[in-house]
Amino acid sequence: MNDSETDYYHVDGTLLPAGEATVNVRDRGFMYGDAVFERLRVYGGEPFEWAAHVDRLERSAARLGFDEVLPPRDDLHDRVTETLDANDLSEASVRLSVSRGVQGGELTPEPRVDPTITVVVDELPRGGTDGERAWDEPATLRTVETRRPPEEALPSAVKTHNYLTGILARLELEGTDADEALVRSMEGHVTGGADSNLFLVHNGTLYTPTANLPLLPGVTRGVVLDIADGESFPVETGRYNLTDVREADELFLTNATWEVRPVTGIDGYEKPVGPITKLCGRLFDRRVENARY
Amino acid sequence: MNDSETDYYHVDGTLLPAGEATVNVRDRGFMYGDAVFERLRVYGGEPFEWAAHVDRLERSAARLGFDEVLPPRDDLHDRVTETLDANDLSEASVRLSVSRGVQGGELTPEPRVDPTITVVVDELPRGGTDGERAWDEPATLRTVETRRPPEEALPSAVKTHNYLTGILARLELEGTDADEALVRSMEGHVTGGADSNLFLVHNGTLYTPTANLPLLPGVTRGVVLDIADGESFPVETGRYNLTDVREADELFLTNATWEVRPVTGIDGYEKPVGPITKLCGRLFDRRVENARY
Repeated sequence: MNDSETDYYHVDGTLLPAGEATVNVRDRGFMYGDAVFERLRVYGGEPFEWAAHVDRLERSAARLGFDEVLPPRDDLHDRVTETLDANDLSEASVRLSVSRGVQGGELTPEPRVDPTITVVVDELPRGGTDGERAWDEPATLRTVETRRPPEEALPSAVKTHNYLTGILARLELEGTDADEALVRSMEGHVTGGADSNLFLVHNGTLYTPTANLPLLPGVTRGVVLDIADGESFPVETGRYNLTDVREADELFLTNATWEVRPVTGIDGYEKPVGPITKLCGRLFDRRVENARY
Repeated sequence: MNDSETDYYHVDGTLLPAGEATVNVRDRGFMYGDAVFERLRVYGGEPFEWAAHVDRLERSAARLGFDEVLPPRDDLHDRVTETLDANDLSEASVRLSVSRGVQGGELTPEPRVDPTITVVVDELPRGGTDGERAWDEPATLRTVETRRPPEEALPSAVKTHNYLTGILARLELEGTDADEALVRSMEGHVTGGADSNLFLVHNGTLYTPTANLPLLPGVTRGVVLDIADGESFPVETGRYNLTDVREADELFLTNATWEVRPVTGIDGYEKPVGPITKLCGRLFDRRVENARY
């Protein structure tokens, strides 16, 4: 319980006031972005889709070659819960990060890894049925010139502290009315937002860019696909271009923070918040409600 | 002056013992690699090619949109000098880094930037004429599958904390006898090492991959090109493939730490430390000697 205004974060097993929650300047997560992370929602004190997030955290660490030093899942879960408790939060956004830690200073990683594990939390409105969204308005998209790195240059399915492509994409929105960038692959296929996955609705079918493209297939994207499957919506994953997106009947974005967020503008074209978007949002809320305890 | 074993680093204007030299877990340099840096050599207490390094630091920060918050060059120079003095070092490697600092937590950068400026130093052997190299042996190269991101995905000429491509390239060397990765562009042109620039010598001409390729044109690469120009060596910058590299008469790598480092092996082929490589090394040493005071 936390009566004061102070936030507490978790750093390497210790709860610290936010201002003292630090990593060393030689931490490879800081020096090189040599770290993996997950951003997840907590509803009713419980991390939503915990298994999916920890699965990806493990896959990300494996790709970077330090998955053997990840603590057991229960241990990670405890760190998240302790941080939530210290801040007296049950509705929150959590950033759980594992870096390769401090090493000798060479670019080549050393085999012996002492990871730096941090948990940062932020309060969010209560989600689920009768809950509130973490966003105020539907999204406005704008196509940017920054492209997603090809798989061979940066593996797309792992979530690391190398987030500059997304930042450069967002910086292109400065001075426009857009709040999410529409990003493409080098070949011109739409991959999604800078920090979100994209869904298109066209003639009653739900479309989303295939995970064979260089994109991060989000946990929330997976939940929406699972919902669509459960409701027997027609769903297709594939490769879509800008025209497909601009001509869609409905568009929405997903990520852990936004959940299902409608898009009402794309490159100056207006879009309605359509029935399938609304239904996906409501079914998502039901999932959240059922997961809460 | 520093009589103890403790190292001191510079963090936001304050000298701190290494163990206390930290950045907040919400620093964007840590969360997203949203930071720029330079690694430079100090000879005789003086940062080598200071102007070229600060030029690039400013260009890097400009590309990320926060160059206006960089302190004046004299101020940055003072921070480097203070850190060297605190550690009683005159022959050193310096890492000078500027991150976008702590912000609200959204991926989109906020316009108001309070940067985090850090200086980390490491002792190195005395360079220059009659000096020593920072490496023990010539380099052994191995071609890796990891490719350099295209310009449109990550700007190559800026030096940021997004270094994962280089790390993945180096990780591919595990279990081999190589200590530097030979990296190519998506199109198959050789761009250089994971953390170094490559020079080829063929029939007395010096070749290096053009900066039009997605590579970081190093300050040391620039010095070597300048030396070659001064000596009227035939020099060509262009696009070379693996065969060009494997069939070169001589190969060497450059970066601030290694200076001019010969390559004696590439994918199992042996190379001699040839006369032009040796000459470039000696002329580089003379530059260092002349810059020292």
